[in-house]
Amino acid sequence: MIYYPVHSGYPPYTEVNRVIEAVFAEHGRGDARMPPKVYVELVGSGDFRTMPAYLPELGLAGVKIVNVNPHNRARGLPTVMALTVFIDVETGAPKAIINSTELTAMRTGAAGAVAARYLAPRQTIALGVIGAGRQSEALVEATIAALAVEEIRVWSRTEKHAEAFAARYEEYNARSVSIEHACDCDVLTTATPSITPLIMAEWIHDGTHINAIGADAPGKQELDPVLLQEAEVFVDDRSQAIHSGEINVPVSTGRYDPDRLTGTLGEVVTGKKGRSSLDAITIFDSTGLAIQDLAIAALAVQGSEGYKLPFP
Amino acid sequence: MIYYPVHSGYPPYTEVNRVIEAVFAEHGRGDARMPPKVYVELVGSGDFRTMPAYLPELGLAGVKIVNVNPHNRARGLPTVMALTVFIDVETGAPKAIINSTELTAMRTGAAGAVAARYLAPRQTIALGVIGAGRQSEALVEATIAALAVEEIRVWSRTEKHAEAFAARYEEYNARSVSIEHACDCDVLTTATPSITPLIMAEWIHDGTHINAIGADAPGKQELDPVLLQEAEVFVDDRSQAIHSGEINVPVSTGRYDPDRLTGTLGEVVTGKKGRSSLDAITIFDSTGLAIQDLAIAALAVQGSEGYKLPFP
Repeated sequence: MIYYPVHSGYPPYTEVNRVIEAVFAEHGRGDARMPPKVYVELVGSGDFRTMPAYLPELGLAGVKIVNVNPHNRARGLPTVMALTVFIDVETGAPKAIINSTELTAMRTGAAGAVAARYLAPRQTIALGVIGAGRQSEALVEATIAALAVEEIRVWSRTEKHAEAFAARYEEYNARSVSIEHACDCDVLTTATPSITPLIMAEWIHDGTHINAIGADAPGKQELDPVLLQEAEVFVDDRSQAIHSGEINVPVSTGRYDPDRLTGTLGEVVTGKKGRSSLDAITIFDSTGLAIQDLAIAALAVQGSEGYKLPFP
Repeated sequence: MIYYPVHSGYPPYTEVNRVIEAVFAEHGRGDARMPPKVYVELVGSGDFRTMPAYLPELGLAGVKIVNVNPHNRARGLPTVMALTVFIDVETGAPKAIINSTELTAMRTGAAGAVAARYLAPRQTIALGVIGAGRQSEALVEATIAALAVEEIRVWSRTEKHAEAFAARYEEYNARSVSIEHACDCDVLTTATPSITPLIMAEWIHDGTHINAIGADAPGKQELDPVLLQEAEVFVDDRSQAIHSGEINVPVSTGRYDPDRLTGTLGEVVTGKKGRSSLDAITIFDSTGLAIQDLAIAALAVQGSEGYKLPFP
C-alpha cells in the first residue's frame, strides 16, 4: 500500500478535463458503479461524506472520504479536506491512499469546464464568477483550459475578496463587479455555500450556461427556482442532485419536478443530449461524483513515488 | 495523519469484549450515528463495503473499507482485508489510518461473545462451532474470555480443517465432530460463507443460543428458516440485518417477518430486552457494525507509534 501526499506537481487542467470527460462518458454509457454518497453529520463540525465507486473499464475502484466544515477557515485549515483510498479490483485489497484535498476542487472545476465546453452558446466567452473562494479559482482555471475566455466578471459578498481574485486573472480581463453585472455573461459559475437563492432569474439573459456548483448538501441553493423552471437542467447524477444538488430545495418544496430534468452530463458528452437552441438557458447542477475522484487521483499519482506502507 | 499497521500487540479479548459491549450500549441508547453499509460489487472479485459511523460520546468518527473476495485464499491473501480511516470530530480532517484486517475478525468475535454472555442459558457452556476458518477462531477466543467454556465441538465441511482447529483448543476439550453433534451444545456459532441452510431446526435443543455470523451479504444464510420462526431473534442493526444478515433470504422470500424480531444486541446490553425463558432458543444475527470497527481500532492503536504522514 502506498500513501501519496500529492503536494506538488498537480496535472495541468487540459489533462484533468480530459480524464473527467472520459469518466462522464463511462457514466453516460451506464458502466460506472456508484452508490449515492453517504453523509454523516458531526455535531457542530459540519459533516463528512463517504463516496465509493467502481469504474470497470478504467480498472479503478475505491472510496473518497471528504469533510465540509465551515469553521475550519478560522483555524487556518481548509473547509474541505479529502482522502481517496484505492481498492485493487482483482483482490479487493487497499492499494493506495491519496491526499485529495486539492484534487477535490480540481475535479469539480473540471466538471464545470466540461459542461461549459458542451453547453456554452459559443467557444469564446465572457465568464461570470459568483464567489471568490478556492472552488471558483479551480472553475476559472479549468474553464480557461477548455474555452477561449475573453473576460472574467467576479462577484463576492466580500468585495476585497473579489478584487484579489480578479487581480490573479488580469490577463483574462478580470474585474470585480456587481452581482447583476457578473450574471451578464456567456458562462456563469456559482460556488458559494448559500442556503438562499443569490441569482435572480431576471439577471440571466437567453443563451447563458450556468454551472451551479455550490449546492452540494440538503438545504443549500444558489439559484432563483424560477430559473430552474425556465432552463434546460442537466445534472451529474440524478439521485445525488435530488438529494443534495441545486435542485434539492425546490424539489423538496414542490417548486421543481425532477421529471423535468433534461439529462445528465454523461448523456451530454456521449452525444445523447444537449442544449436545444442557442437561446436556451442551460444549467449544470453539479454535486460531485466519486468516479471523478477516482479518475483524478489516478492521474495525479502517475509517476510519483509516495510512502510505502505495510499492509495487510 | 498517522498510519498504524497494527501487526502485533493486539489487545486481549477481555479488553476487546469490553469496548464492543460499550459501543453496543451506545447503539442501544440511540446515540450512535451509522448509515447502513454500502456494497460495491467488483466483477468476478467479490465486493467491497464502505462503513461510515460516528460515536459522539466516545468522540470517534470514521469509515471502514473492507473487501470480501473468496478467490483470495488461492492467492495466499486473506479473504477479508480492511482499512479504517479516522476523522477528527472537530475539524473533519483524516487523522489516522489503521490496518483493520485482523481487527475485523476480532470485533466480530467479540460481538458474538457479548451476545453469548447475555443470551446463553448458563455461564459454563459447551460451545458448538460450525466452520473452521479465521472467523470461528476469533469467536472461540472471544467466547473463552467471556464465559467458562468446558467443551468445544467443531464441524467443518473439510474434516481435516476441523481436526486442526480442535487441536489448537485441546485445553478446552475441543473435538472434531459431526454437524449434528456440534449443534448439541449451549452456544453454537456459525461462520461459513453458505448460501443454503446448513443447520436444521431439529438438531437444536431448547435453551440453545446461536451466534449466526456467516451471513453478511444478500443471498447468504446458514440456518433453517424454521429455526428463525421458532426462536427469539436479536440483530445488531435492524436495517443491515434485513438487507444482508441471516434473516435476509427468509425476509425476501416471505418466510420471516422482520416485525417478529425480538430486539437488538444494544437493547440487550442496556437491559431493555433479553431471552424470555431458559427454554427459549435465542439467535444473534450479526452483520457487523461500523461502530464496532471504530471502537476496536481506537483500542488497538492506543500507545502505538505508527508512520507519520503529511496531510493535507
